[in-house]
Amino acid sequence: MDVPKGFKFAGVSAGIKADSSKKDMTLIAPDGPCAVAGVYTQNLVVAAPVTLDRQRTPSNSIRGVIVNSGNANACTGQQGCANAEAMAASAAAEIGCEAEEVLVMSTGIIGVQLPMEKILDGARHLGSLLGGDGESFLAAADGFLTTDNGRKISSRQIDIGSEQITIAGIAKGAGMIGINMATFLSVVMTDAKIDAATLQSIQSRVIQTTFNCVSVEGHTSTNDTFLLMASGAVGNSLSADELQEFESVLEEVCLDLAKMIPADGEGASHVLEIEVSGAGCDHDARVIAETVAHSNLVKTCITGNDPNWGRIVSAVGYAGIDIDADQIVLHLLGQKLFERSEPVVFNAAKMSSAMRNNREISIQLRVGSGSGNAKIWTSDLTTDYVVFNADYHT
Amino acid sequence: MDVPKGFKFAGVSAGIKADSSKKDMTLIAPDGPCAVAGVYTQNLVVAAPVTLDRQRTPSNSIRGVIVNSGNANACTGQQGCANAEAMAASAAAEIGCEAEEVLVMSTGIIGVQLPMEKILDGARHLGSLLGGDGESFLAAADGFLTTDNGRKISSRQIDIGSEQITIAGIAKGAGMIGINMATFLSVVMTDAKIDAATLQSIQSRVIQTTFNCVSVEGHTSTNDTFLLMASGAVGNSLSADELQEFESVLEEVCLDLAKMIPADGEGASHVLEIEVSGAGCDHDARVIAETVAHSNLVKTCITGNDPNWGRIVSAVGYAGIDIDADQIVLHLLGQKLFERSEPVVFNAAKMSSAMRNNREISIQLRVGSGSGNAKIWTSDLTTDYVVFNADYHT
Repeated sequence: MDVPKGFKFAGVSAGIKADSSKKDMTLIAPDGPCAVAGVYTQNLVVAAPVTLDRQRTPSNSIRGVIVNSGNANACTGQQGCANAEAMAASAAAEIGCEAEEVLVMSTGIIGVQLPMEKILDGARHLGSLLGGDGESFLAAADGFLTTDNGRKISSRQIDIGSEQITIAGIAKGAGMIGINMATFLSVVMTDAKIDAATLQSIQSRVIQTTFNCVSVEGHTSTNDTFLLMASGAVGNSLSADELQEFESVLEEVCLDLAKMIPADGEGASHVLEIEVSGAGCDHDARVIAETVAHSNLVKTCITGNDPNWGRIVSAVGYAGIDIDADQIVLHLLGQKLFERSEPVVFNAAKMSSAMRNNREISIQLRVGSGSGNAKIWTSDLTTDYVVFNADYHT
Repeated sequence: MDVPKGFKFAGVSAGIKADSSKKDMTLIAPDGPCAVAGVYTQNLVVAAPVTLDRQRTPSNSIRGVIVNSGNANACTGQQGCANAEAMAASAAAEIGCEAEEVLVMSTGIIGVQLPMEKILDGARHLGSLLGGDGESFLAAADGFLTTDNGRKISSRQIDIGSEQITIAGIAKGAGMIGINMATFLSVVMTDAKIDAATLQSIQSRVIQTTFNCVSVEGHTSTNDTFLLMASGAVGNSLSADELQEFESVLEEVCLDLAKMIPADGEGASHVLEIEVSGAGCDHDARVIAETVAHSNLVKTCITGNDPNWGRIVSAVGYAGIDIDADQIVLHLLGQKLFERSEPVVFNAAKMSSAMRNNREISIQLRVGSGSGNAKIWTSDLTTDYVVFNADYHT
């Protein structure tokens, strides 16, 4: 695991989660003032830490990010806002900075106040463990997780001039968790020198082709947060060309992390890669791809390893995008299933067996001769998903 | 069962469905030229019978409607169009009218040509059985069904002046069927005297508050069709006041039929009635209601009898409608769960038990102080739904 320079990390169990063997708090502390850009949930019901971070980013002088899992501090009113502030202050005390220089991320149960005693104890414990090594980074990554089946990390290195730059990211987000909606959180860090305004514009582009292209059930959470941090510990400010190179490697890291989310969707048996081409514009292609991705009928036919072209093609038809239905061409796992308004003859048994043997299922839809393209990833819908999400009593 | 005057009905098993004990063809034959209005699927992928009916309605001179279940005649190309024409002609031969005076409805498997020999035999059989009694009406209703758990019919009578007018409707539509998307079909008949243009405008209003307010998974089929027929066998043309009375009773019949659809959703354990008020306009209220209705997280918490206000409130937040989140008030089965951005204290065990004992679950959301309202019905999401829809191999 390559860890970017200029950051220290820690992850601990603070007792917020019922299972005390699981980490539930993380601290990321840049060695000095750090450039940070943020993108947040578009849900109008917004958790306290999101409100706080929105006010504090973009910034060139962030000194820390404190994270907890097990409690989302969402739908918690004025007390929730005060608790988020206090959580930032607790990290600031460990780092030796102002509370306003710290960002906060929370994920977990909603509508319940944070257990502040545990949070404050946890912050002290985090402060005592901060380290810049790979092990500390992994501990930090673990503090993000809720019902995720495993750690979600990715890193890449690039040579820019005579310097080696590292980009490393942490994410969390399962399909769903038993008691409330899954939250997507990610922090991607680099030791390159890039100011916050530049980071923000890079981030707003990269998110479109990465994190915004995965969807488990289209349910945006109250807490979704993606922070991009640059410590500037390596080399000088990047030139325009170097920034472009940086951006394309950042995109790879974000795509790695993004694709881990539907793969880890609760109960998922397949990941669907849905590619739409030939639409009038990228937006139209995306709407069609999302409509197919969110169709429970499409999801369940994939679950059942059934090459059910009818469900896929008809989902395209009701997406609300004006296309010529006669031009729809559908490929599933590379096999053409539908063209010129009629199904193509294919070996259904062989197709079904191929689906059974592939965890990743590619669905390619050509919907016309336009230049609009989109690609998104989602998970299928299994009885396990329903059981996970139904089998809870408040 | 009150049957409108001026119509004859028949339903038979023509062997299109594998199970020969199940009816799969229906003929409805008005005694003379009949006023008919139609509303059709908005899916761009459209079945042959829908294309045919669209060209033939509204009309004041329809002489028959022939229906088959077991095969949707969708995604069947030019041959499918020719088969739909031939099916209309087969009914016309029995009725003694022109093929162009007959409408066609089909539902069932898609991408497979109609078994025309069975269809033509079935039409002859239907012609020999036509009757105006209640039993014939029920046989006709049965010919519509696919995986529906039961017959879907409703009727009402109204006295207008010295005349008694009857409105009777047939519908079909389950949540989903194993092999392809469910189709919604309905024919509502009256013996009142109303011309086709007036029927069409009444129908376009009534559908907004009835059939357009039910949704099982938001997957519009290739075949959805709703026909409104007036034989004119009773009384004179209705006055403006009488038409208004007619419309309100028609709305009751359509709402009866509409609510039977989510109630019969495959594997459904609850029907959700989602009412949104206080939005800026009715459209905004409807978008919010649909977003809640289509959330798998909301559906599964209802399945699990869990009063999970967080999932419902956050679905409102991501509906894409600009509201003040602080103003959201949520009631579930009449119990207030959420207000002023925070959960209300309630007895969760009692609430869960009430959900278990109610097949119909009302979700009431106030989202502001506007005048926009909407009410829609949907079904929950169970493991049975997934099994039904995944457990098929082409």
